[in-house]
Amino acid sequence: MGDFLPTFSHVQQAATVLNGVVSRTPVLDSSYLDEQCGGGVLVKCENLQRTGAFKFRGAYYALSRKEAVAPFKAVVTLSSGNHAQGIALAGRLLGYPAYIVMPEPVNPFKRERVEEFGASVRIVRTRAEGEVLAQELVHVHQGVFIHPFNDPDVIAGQGTAILELLQAEPEIDVVLAPLGGGGLLSGACLAAHGLNPHIQVYGCEPARALDALLSLREGRILLPHPVDTMAEGLRTSLGEVTLSILQDHLQDVFVVEEEEIIPAMRIAFERMKMVIEPSSAVALAPILRGEPALRGKRVGVVLSGGNISMSDVCSMMGGM
Amino acid sequence: MGDFLPTFSHVQQAATVLNGVVSRTPVLDSSYLDEQCGGGVLVKCENLQRTGAFKFRGAYYALSRKEAVAPFKAVVTLSSGNHAQGIALAGRLLGYPAYIVMPEPVNPFKRERVEEFGASVRIVRTRAEGEVLAQELVHVHQGVFIHPFNDPDVIAGQGTAILELLQAEPEIDVVLAPLGGGGLLSGACLAAHGLNPHIQVYGCEPARALDALLSLREGRILLPHPVDTMAEGLRTSLGEVTLSILQDHLQDVFVVEEEEIIPAMRIAFERMKMVIEPSSAVALAPILRGEPALRGKRVGVVLSGGNISMSDVCSMMGGM
Repeated sequence: MGDFLPTFSHVQQAATVLNGVVSRTPVLDSSYLDEQCGGGVLVKCENLQRTGAFKFRGAYYALSRKEAVAPFKAVVTLSSGNHAQGIALAGRLLGYPAYIVMPEPVNPFKRERVEEFGASVRIVRTRAEGEVLAQELVHVHQGVFIHPFNDPDVIAGQGTAILELLQAEPEIDVVLAPLGGGGLLSGACLAAHGLNPHIQVYGCEPARALDALLSLREGRILLPHPVDTMAEGLRTSLGEVTLSILQDHLQDVFVVEEEEIIPAMRIAFERMKMVIEPSSAVALAPILRGEPALRGKRVGVVLSGGNISMSDVCSMMGGM
Repeated sequence: MGDFLPTFSHVQQAATVLNGVVSRTPVLDSSYLDEQCGGGVLVKCENLQRTGAFKFRGAYYALSRKEAVAPFKAVVTLSSGNHAQGIALAGRLLGYPAYIVMPEPVNPFKRERVEEFGASVRIVRTRAEGEVLAQELVHVHQGVFIHPFNDPDVIAGQGTAILELLQAEPEIDVVLAPLGGGGLLSGACLAAHGLNPHIQVYGCEPARALDALLSLREGRILLPHPVDTMAEGLRTSLGEVTLSILQDHLQDVFVVEEEEIIPAMRIAFERMKMVIEPSSAVALAPILRGEPALRGKRVGVVLSGGNISMSDVCSMMGGM
């Protein structure tokens, strides 16, 4: 894992494998976002992807690739988030039992969906504990471990979301995506620059899990501190593979304040009629605040996921 | 108004006029709905239409048609709902000041959007009062009045939503749409049977505004009683034009209990990541309860609109 850097041709290969398996999610415009941004905004709705998030792309592609390399009898991962659902569904579709280790805090909404796909869930208190357990499960079940983002195949799979966006809308100047572990964003870089080296790719990172911007500046992986953003999908640090790709390709990082997240969710909900989770709202925030670098540009943004319960949304809104 | 019955060719004409003006909204599938229904469900997302509802189709087409018949200087309507927004935007796009008379109760979320489109809003206590005021406004401003549903052009415009659905998915056996004044459903009948007379078109009507089913049985327009459903868009009775079309074309009406509405909104929200208003949820309810007539069928359903505020959604959910 992490031994080679994926390229544009890996993204294209992934698109071939994923064709007919993933939903070709819609790309929507929004006159409201255009006005806020002072440009033209196109939204790739990966919240409408199978499992409710783009993560299914990378999970399925990675599992199908590893199948071609060496035999295994199960798939294992360590994730409390949307990657867990992606692996659970990919496992079911490709015929492998899935073992999902979830470090606390576990969102019951996401756990329920993972179990609906027939995966076995094991909850652990810490990530370190989770790593030990995941290795055990790999051993016991002759499983393959698929990392949520620091895996060339996973990255190539995620890149297909941006490939579809740019195939539908080739005139896009700027791509925005949320920045957590960097899997989606790395895939976005490969897809965008494979098609057109002039496209600017920006990451959107919560101030309350600010590690990627600093890691990119220092050229080494730093841990986020503090890490208390409500954008639970973006609390992770980068990996070696994603750091390396982002260093080569990323234009810059927009830092998003915690107070911008719920208003952005509300805009998605009320103006776009889209349910998104806080991590997705982080990528809308720079548009809504009229970020100067976006003025007059054609901006493509990935709504990465919509896995949130009504009751969580309402309790967040109540807290405004 | 209401002097002639529209036909399939009017729907086709409307589609030509609306091409490039309306959004060609996505048609999505949902494995969750498939399972509930015991068939294959395809969802036409008119909540993603401009103004957040299908009503913009009929409003724009009707205004553009009337323009060709006789000159006027403004557009007037009587509506507290999505038709008001449709007329407001159509007026702005076609260059006519729009005067919207809204009978109480007025949803502030919908009123705000109407005003954002630059329309003048007048609130009245009763519909009868509203009719008088609307006539006055027509007189004073040399306006044309556009009825929310009992108008052949409006019906033809709404039919384009189903035309698009069936062009995208020609194998559909059954079409479901919410049933209030019957404009969308009448358009659905014309579009569906123009393409394929074997398609079954069903209306979905709240038990707490049950007039259309009874009107169709008796062959004359009855007023809903009681009329206290939360599906505010479906509280109206039929008109002469819609009654006549539905009598000829409608397969049957599914009556939806009030208790089914919020759970259906929740399913749309949590499973489909779609914000819909209660009127739209009424058309999902027969699918979710596994209505026997839908088993094994390919079902197309129109999500008619998504104009609801977060705070209204949360107060509804809190009331479960």
